[in-house]
Amino acid sequence: MRYAVLGTGIAGRTIAAKLSALGHEVVVGTRDPESTLARSTPDAMGNPPFATWHETHPIRLASFSEATAQADTVVNATAGAGSIQALTAAGAENLDGKVLIDVANALDFSAGMPPTLSPVNTDSLGEQIQRTFPGAKVVKTLNTMNSQIMVAPDRIAGPHTVFVCGNDTGAKKAVTELLVSIGWPESAVIDLGDITAARGTEMVLPVWLRLYGALGHTDFNFHIQGARAAG
Amino acid sequence: MRYAVLGTGIAGRTIAAKLSALGHEVVVGTRDPESTLARSTPDAMGNPPFATWHETHPIRLASFSEATAQADTVVNATAGAGSIQALTAAGAENLDGKVLIDVANALDFSAGMPPTLSPVNTDSLGEQIQRTFPGAKVVKTLNTMNSQIMVAPDRIAGPHTVFVCGNDTGAKKAVTELLVSIGWPESAVIDLGDITAARGTEMVLPVWLRLYGALGHTDFNFHIQGARAAG
Repeated sequence: MRYAVLGTGIAGRTIAAKLSALGHEVVVGTRDPESTLARSTPDAMGNPPFATWHETHPIRLASFSEATAQADTVVNATAGAGSIQALTAAGAENLDGKVLIDVANALDFSAGMPPTLSPVNTDSLGEQIQRTFPGAKVVKTLNTMNSQIMVAPDRIAGPHTVFVCGNDTGAKKAVTELLVSIGWPESAVIDLGDITAARGTEMVLPVWLRLYGALGHTDFNFHIQGARAAG
Repeated sequence: MRYAVLGTGIAGRTIAAKLSALGHEVVVGTRDPESTLARSTPDAMGNPPFATWHETHPIRLASFSEATAQADTVVNATAGAGSIQALTAAGAENLDGKVLIDVANALDFSAGMPPTLSPVNTDSLGEQIQRTFPGAKVVKTLNTMNSQIMVAPDRIAGPHTVFVCGNDTGAKKAVTELLVSIGWPESAVIDLGDITAARGTEMVLPVWLRLYGALGHTDFNFHIQGARAAG
């Protein structure tokens, strides 16, 4: 498969490296490749500049539109607040008919910490993306955990859950196959229905952030634990 | 201990029955005991009328204020949209200095299904209650699961999580002891910090409702699954 991974932060890097290691053709998309490569200071989260990572991960970097044009599947790993803008730059015509895997969270840091969500409650980023790019087959998934767990589910002890939702059944099936190829057991994947379920999975973020605060790390995931068999 | 359980729906009934079975003195609080007992039709969820339940669970029913006045610990199991009104009827003076266990969810059905949350994102019902009744020691807990699991955690196969949050450390300790007496392993209790963490646990409801839809039942709970030990 030919993937575009949009976003050069930790999520984008981690997903791009994993897809590349699985043998896929991957192009990382960014607003302006030259300025992304020119940055020499760590980002706000203390992550090393993209160029440093790029030295050991020689994955092609291109503009949002160039990366998306060559891909058959697109991953939105941009910061949620900038996702619509990034996907607009990628080009609706380049997204048309393609599976668009949305792993972003619409965290709003404008009023300080803890961040709030925008949109929220009666809308979600996943739905916004689907509305704005009706030709794309948006599947929301993987946004409820840190990016290392996304691509290495065996970091977690015992079973844990990954949610998928979206309007296109075939796209959800393709994403589930990708998740299985990454190492997710098929039994870990819960299909929550259409893209409006993104409200639910995005609204998990506030408790995720509180758990980060309480546990002191993000090496955890949600597991949906079922009932005992009657008997 | 002397408990007031405010609310005569399934959550209130289930919690009152369990506390009574544990040997506590329990009074169930309602707006108007006479009209609660007079109702003869099932509620909107299809639950039998309170009077039917009351025949096999002869737990005293009183007004919100009378139930609260006699209690040393109060459980808010009213519908979230009516919780502030119910607690106002209970009386700030009757809540003063007491542990107030808030298990409610501020579900807003006014725009149809699925319900939204109100308040949400920058506020929560738990915080509203604490602000409105500053003399109460509000502990938000148990709102992320159905009421049968609240009082019978061994319904669920394998470990699963119950969150607590609140501003008063002693109150959280007392609630944790109550949870342990109900059957929750202490290791299942995660303290998320002060009452503002109620935003996080209340915002879990939308994904809970989607899981209900996807699984076809509510016999599940969230478990926070940790990382494998390094080695």
